[in-house]
Amino acid sequence: MTVTRATAVSVVGATGYTGAELLRLLLGHGRVSISQIVGHGTAGQPVASVLPSFAGILEGEVRAFDPDAIAASSQVAFCALPHGASAPTVAALRERGVIVLDLSADFRLRDLAVYGEWYGEHGAPALLADAVYGLVELYREELRTADLVAVPGCYPTAATLALAPLLKERLVSSDGLVVDAKSGVTGAGRAAKPNTHLPEAAEGIRAYKSAGQHRHTPEIEQELSRLAGREVRVTFTPHLVPMSRGILATAYAMANDAHATAERCTEAARALYRGSPSVTVLEPGSHPDTLWVRGSNRVHLAYTRDDRTGRIVAQAVVDNLVKGAAGQAIQCMNVRLGFDESEALRAPATWP
Amino acid sequence: MTVTRATAVSVVGATGYTGAELLRLLLGHGRVSISQIVGHGTAGQPVASVLPSFAGILEGEVRAFDPDAIAASSQVAFCALPHGASAPTVAALRERGVIVLDLSADFRLRDLAVYGEWYGEHGAPALLADAVYGLVELYREELRTADLVAVPGCYPTAATLALAPLLKERLVSSDGLVVDAKSGVTGAGRAAKPNTHLPEAAEGIRAYKSAGQHRHTPEIEQELSRLAGREVRVTFTPHLVPMSRGILATAYAMANDAHATAERCTEAARALYRGSPSVTVLEPGSHPDTLWVRGSNRVHLAYTRDDRTGRIVAQAVVDNLVKGAAGQAIQCMNVRLGFDESEALRAPATWP
Amino acid sequence: MTVTRATAVSVVGATGYTGAELLRLLLGHGRVSISQIVGHGTAGQPVASVLPSFAGILEGEVRAFDPDAIAASSQVAFCALPHGASAPTVAALRERGVIVLDLSADFRLRDLAVYGEWYGEHGAPALLADAVYGLVELYREELRTADLVAVPGCYPTAATLALAPLLKERLVSSDGLVVDAKSGVTGAGRAAKPNTHLPEAAEGIRAYKSAGQHRHTPEIEQELSRLAGREVRVTFTPHLVPMSRGILATAYAMANDAHATAERCTEAARALYRGSPSVTVLEPGSHPDTLWVRGSNRVHLAYTRDDRTGRIVAQAVVDNLVKGAAGQAIQCMNVRLGFDESEALRAPATWP
Amino acid sequence: MTVTRATAVSVVGATGYTGAELLRLLLGHGRVSISQIVGHGTAGQPVASVLPSFAGILEGEVRAFDPDAIAASSQVAFCALPHGASAPTVAALRERGVIVLDLSADFRLRDLAVYGEWYGEHGAPALLADAVYGLVELYREELRTADLVAVPGCYPTAATLALAPLLKERLVSSDGLVVDAKSGVTGAGRAAKPNTHLPEAAEGIRAYKSAGQHRHTPEIEQELSRLAGREVRVTFTPHLVPMSRGILATAYAMANDAHATAERCTEAARALYRGSPSVTVLEPGSHPDTLWVRGSNRVHLAYTRDDRTGRIVAQAVVDNLVKGAAGQAIQCMNVRLGFDESEALRAPATWP
Repeated sequence: MTVTRATAVSVVGATGYTGAELLRLLLGHGRVSISQIVGHGTAGQPVASVLPSFAGILEGEVRAFDPDAIAASSQVAFCALPHGASAPTVAALRERGVIVLDLSADFRLRDLAVYGEWYGEHGAPALLADAVYGLVELYREELRTADLVAVPGCYPTAATLALAPLLKERLVSSDGLVVDAKSGVTGAGRAAKPNTHLPEAAEGIRAYKSAGQHRHTPEIEQELSRLAGREVRVTFTPHLVPMSRGILATAYAMANDAHATAERCTEAARALYRGSPSVTVLEPGSHPDTLWVRGSNRVHLAYTRDDRTGRIVAQAVVDNLVKGAAGQAIQCMNVRLGFDESEALRAPATWP
Repeated sequence: MTVTRATAVSVVGATGYTGAELLRLLLGHGRVSISQIVGHGTAGQPVASVLPSFAGILEGEVRAFDPDAIAASSQVAFCALPHGASAPTVAALRERGVIVLDLSADFRLRDLAVYGEWYGEHGAPALLADAVYGLVELYREELRTADLVAVPGCYPTAATLALAPLLKERLVSSDGLVVDAKSGVTGAGRAAKPNTHLPEAAEGIRAYKSAGQHRHTPEIEQELSRLAGREVRVTFTPHLVPMSRGILATAYAMANDAHATAERCTEAARALYRGSPSVTVLEPGSHPDTLWVRGSNRVHLAYTRDDRTGRIVAQAVVDNLVKGAAGQAIQCMNVRLGFDESEALRAPATWP
Repeated sequence: MTVTRATAVSVVGATGYTGAELLRLLLGHGRVSISQIVGHGTAGQPVASVLPSFAGILEGEVRAFDPDAIAASSQVAFCALPHGASAPTVAALRERGVIVLDLSADFRLRDLAVYGEWYGEHGAPALLADAVYGLVELYREELRTADLVAVPGCYPTAATLALAPLLKERLVSSDGLVVDAKSGVTGAGRAAKPNTHLPEAAEGIRAYKSAGQHRHTPEIEQELSRLAGREVRVTFTPHLVPMSRGILATAYAMANDAHATAERCTEAARALYRGSPSVTVLEPGSHPDTLWVRGSNRVHLAYTRDDRTGRIVAQAVVDNLVKGAAGQAIQCMNVRLGFDESEALRAPATWP
Repeated sequence: MTVTRATAVSVVGATGYTGAELLRLLLGHGRVSISQIVGHGTAGQPVASVLPSFAGILEGEVRAFDPDAIAASSQVAFCALPHGASAPTVAALRERGVIVLDLSADFRLRDLAVYGEWYGEHGAPALLADAVYGLVELYREELRTADLVAVPGCYPTAATLALAPLLKERLVSSDGLVVDAKSGVTGAGRAAKPNTHLPEAAEGIRAYKSAGQHRHTPEIEQELSRLAGREVRVTFTPHLVPMSRGILATAYAMANDAHATAERCTEAARALYRGSPSVTVLEPGSHPDTLWVRGSNRVHLAYTRDDRTGRIVAQAVVDNLVKGAAGQAIQCMNVRLGFDESEALRAPATWP
């Protein structure tokens, strides 16, 4: 019998929601052990006082960021930091040879000019060429050797997975795409703000950063353009929904012809995602529900055709903190390290 | 000093959510008195045992439907019944000379064939020609003499008010319209069903009857076609949101040219709704929130332009039970009887 | 015909939740007009940009506090300020002869030493003797001439109204009282904090400041002691519930003997609250629901007896922002100015 | 290396919420395999069409109950049926030698007369003596050999674990106990009912079956009496909270003397639950939150003392579907079969 030595991993930015999800999922991972739990404002505090769901489960304190200490102890690091803050942290870890799964936006946009336009100056432009976009379902091969993974944003994950089969198979026009997305409030992060204050966030729904102002717009367009083989523009409108978790992307595209039925779209998706353990393509005409994937790394997709207008309605649901962030990062690590892609990610949703 | 005699009104179907809202608002109306409170399955029960929010406020029992008794006591009747059940009830009241505000779908579609396609055989086709569509902002003049008012559906109210100024002023193309609508759960009525059961309806969002299957589709198209002056098709997708009340319609339309800015759309809406006390057009780029109109008869509209795609995003929020149902019916009655249009409807939202 | 001149009122601290409710209710008041809308951090901004539910309804800007300007324009002022900040503001207004309805804790505790123990030094101790406790149902006569009204806290309102008839009629022991209270999140105010951040406040319930640490404890004890005719201590535990509005107080008291049935308790409450238009005492064994009073000034009370333990369970529900704050203040003003006690407060709950 | 053969288990009543949780947790269990998934009204349907969170995860159909088939394939069966329906099912399985974890109330009450009083005639009285009460923290030894386990109710789990250390150590009086409990709506089961309809269940809180009418009352009393060594009565009031999952029990007990501080109570709990992997006793004065244990098998306990009244406030939170049902049943199975007690139950809450 061969004893498998656990791979040591650290989590930087562990005390936000994405960090907490990374810890939750990594605790159930059979091939890794958690080395350092790093936080910024909370360094020195017991983990369980910052993340109360780990009381009785995770001992020890949150540590300050020390790239040498991480490199000495860990083969892999997850960085769950705000964009901008992430680039130099990632650079410090990469310099020391640590494999990095970066959950910020800093390495997702391949074009530095586009990054500059939406986020400002880049903190580590030299690393951009090394980064692989961490949407396993579309970049599985590239990820097997990636030492720097740019884990996708939550909206781009849902939107891209929904539209990819349609664009790839030329079932729909790449002109005139509309993505109307709905997100739970955890997408806004852990910091309390007026628009996430329960009395003003519950019992109401509202759009925000509509009409191409949201920073996930260029990321969605980058991926859809690659799939379509031409530059694609999308009208993207995110909405804040009175719930904690989940993203539903409702995407609208003109069918290229009468053959692009809901059944045909469903087949195309099933073909593309064959062998992708996180994705389930529901029957044509289904309506996926974010509740059905809550807490899991799963994606439910469904396709409907409006025969009266010739439009395909493609829907995807994910948990923004799992398949839209922490779970996706672990899925990338699994591919990179040759683990089973689903390790630590097999659990169904905690439903209801 | 002239003493004004109160107009007696009855509410048929008073024990659903729309009926309850009619009673709540009518109690605050200075020119009417409530005569009969009529329910089907609850006849004979005290009103307050069926509608607990009226305990200590409304005495008396729910009555069975008796058109003669209503006609003897009431000048006006509100019918809040399911479609199909409404037509014969309305007919019985109209025969007896009662002015009817009908909140069902039975008299909203002008074309009997279209009604048949979506709802089945009509129960009172002869009355169809008499009905005026009760969207006061667009039919104020016609409503002044209407004895049968077809109060619009909640989704058509939001979608039509958002798009009307754009189509009327030819700011957008009438081709390729998409309406992605989000509704609170009261829109599904008072009957408990699996999809409205709190554990399965909370903490999740999902579409339903997408791609032109929802019965409000032809109603939206009827009104938008009239405004556009040509037959218009719309891709309409309703979603169920984990909250009780409110509809947000996010509508997408291609701008006809570069002059169709968010500012120009906003001006067009302000011009169209000048003198409409229920409508507020927010500044360009705003994001109206259903919470801001909760419990009120108000409509908030806002317009954004996505310059990258040339698309206008028009947003409208209403409370589905008030401006989307009970409040709108009272607004119609006010116009019909020459009362101040805002009587009983001036209250702002109960926020937060 | 006599024309009644409207009484001018100002609202100080208008841009928190209680202030917004004051404005909402005062707009529906037939005998007053709103003069100044005063805010601290928001002075100079349009009212509707701070309180979006008033867009299209309330013109004008929020003003800075100027006691001379208020005194020149207003007969009455509502102060909805934090405790401590309120006392000097109230003093400035009283010096200028303005009738003040104070919604802070500053004038609720009659004993300066008790105030000091729970809140620190008092900002206007000389005024304490003038203040009348604004629980209309118990202090109606005193309020008719009160120029300074200390409007009760939300928890004391619910707890006191539930237990008053039992203590007054000696139906229960005044020893061993337990009040387990549950509040919506608006009770924590408008400022966004971690414990009111939707992801951490929704889908969970928790106590806070349990075991006599909450500052409403001495206020509850003051009123119950007065009713019992002896010094009473209560174990008071507030809980934060994942909803916006509403307080349910579940109070436990030992029945004094077998005659103290649920029916007898119900009768005692009906007798005490006869002529109190805001209070409804439900049938014995009922379970009042905060949803039934949401948005209204109403109180629902109910009494149950646990024969197995000889304990009375007294329940009260109020909307913490209305009967627990703004509505109660207006009710006090109505009594003080000789208006109908229910003016502006007749509306039932916005249910569901 | 020894290959461990997985133990085959079946789930009867798999399509309710508790059944779904059993399947979710069992899928992550390293020592068992799921054999039959049995449902009543849904037999013949694909599992994933009844339980959509298992789409892509669980193949196969729901089966009708066949005790011979279960006995032929399974060593262990979980029964998640309504009380009354469970007894004959359990009897059929026990006759065939299957180890049964019963999640109904049918075998929880040791006294047949008490069962009769609260539930009616018992369907398998002869088995009552064999049943062991499945609260692992208190009956670990007895469970090691139990072939019929009566898994406790959700309220008794929370209330008993909170009060057990206090009664055992005689820190509080066993007279005058009050348990005020708050539950999420899943506690009411999967069937849609008016009181679980989102519009009437959200944005409100209410008690139900107060004052000793709830059937969990005798179960709580049975366990507390055993701990106290005398017959104990408790005033138990459950409340329905607008959230899906979680129970908070706030229990009130008179301290026996001044030595019964919050610290002393905390120590007593830590001593009693030493070696119990599911239980965490928080620092004195903490306020456990149901969100911190959501989706997990964990229990958080905390103790506070109100020095002004001499009362101990003991709080416990559990997820009603996990530690209050499915997780607890699996914990019992683990003990019975000699597995690690935490197998499949180690995951922290899915927070937030």
